[in-house]
Amino acid sequence: MATVLYMSVSLDGYISKEDDFLGGDDGNRLHEWYAPGGDPGALVGEAKDLAAELDRIGAVVTGRRTAELMDHWGGDVHNGVPIFIPSHRPPGPAARWGYPNVHYVQDGISRAMEEAVAAAGERDVYVQGGYTARKALETGVLDEIQVHLIPVLLGSGHRLFDSLPAEIELEVVKVIDTPHATHIRYRVRR
Amino acid sequence: MATVLYMSVSLDGYISKEDDFLGGDDGNRLHEWYAPGGDPGALVGEAKDLAAELDRIGAVVTGRRTAELMDHWGGDVHNGVPIFIPSHRPPGPAARWGYPNVHYVQDGISRAMEEAVAAAGERDVYVQGGYTARKALETGVLDEIQVHLIPVLLGSGHRLFDSLPAEIELEVVKVIDTPHATHIRYRVRR
Repeated sequence: MATVLYMSVSLDGYISKEDDFLGGDDGNRLHEWYAPGGDPGALVGEAKDLAAELDRIGAVVTGRRTAELMDHWGGDVHNGVPIFIPSHRPPGPAARWGYPNVHYVQDGISRAMEEAVAAAGERDVYVQGGYTARKALETGVLDEIQVHLIPVLLGSGHRLFDSLPAEIELEVVKVIDTPHATHIRYRVRR
Repeated sequence: MATVLYMSVSLDGYISKEDDFLGGDDGNRLHEWYAPGGDPGALVGEAKDLAAELDRIGAVVTGRRTAELMDHWGGDVHNGVPIFIPSHRPPGPAARWGYPNVHYVQDGISRAMEEAVAAAGERDVYVQGGYTARKALETGVLDEIQVHLIPVLLGSGHRLFDSLPAEIELEVVKVIDTPHATHIRYRVRR
């Protein structure tokens, strides 16, 4: 198992526009690769394997901002795996009483990741969100980074990577080259 | 011929640290791919072709900041091709009198690019620098983007891409996958 940051990002480093939509006329530009022309079956070759990888997810760690924007996915994402949200503030009512799969962890990213790893067992922990990514990198609890680098310059918005206190070396594990995205998987060197 | 932005960039989007060095213990992390272990002969396969592409350069358009940091390369870069520097301020003494290949263009990026294209003839114009890249993209005078995406997070520094007034669609032309860098060439859609 591994803890993997899994994000679609524009060449200029944005994960969404200021309004939290994902670019393009339909506000979904950055996620188009996953279903070209609206059809997940249009993925070919290794990119299809990449989508299938999502079945290996055993738990999700995501930022509160992303979770709340998505209404906690109605409490069910990736076939109902547990969702861990590091946040110093207590959860809102829906997350507290409505969604048994959603767990707010109030004592930091390390603790949230430990709980996610334990819940995932042999499977992977998927990490999402810019702020959460940076905290996970700073804290040294991230094993891999899977970026889906989209051939577009969004021009502005929310960045995946902002400042980090030190340089972090990565190792290229795998590159999948498609017209829709350049999918690059890195291992984080510790 | 084509006008090509040609830049090494960290996964987190930086082209240098705040002190203008390029990361790593020796301040050259982002350029290591070009000579792994200090040996340009260590490049293999398609990456070798990529380095050979530099022989196709017919002119360079670069930002004033980069040019001055590099002392205008002593007036001679890439086998003495002409160097065009868009800047509203007049050149300093060395550039004005010492370097016949260095041309300051005071009426904007479009004019600088026109002069570079004319000078390059059948060959490519290489564009360098973050600010210059953004101006060239905004003005619509850039044909291609060649990024050398280095497997490192620099954490802070000067960014290649910052804000642009509108989204710009790209097309993936070619990906070269090596352990040292993921080299991606894009065409700019207009």
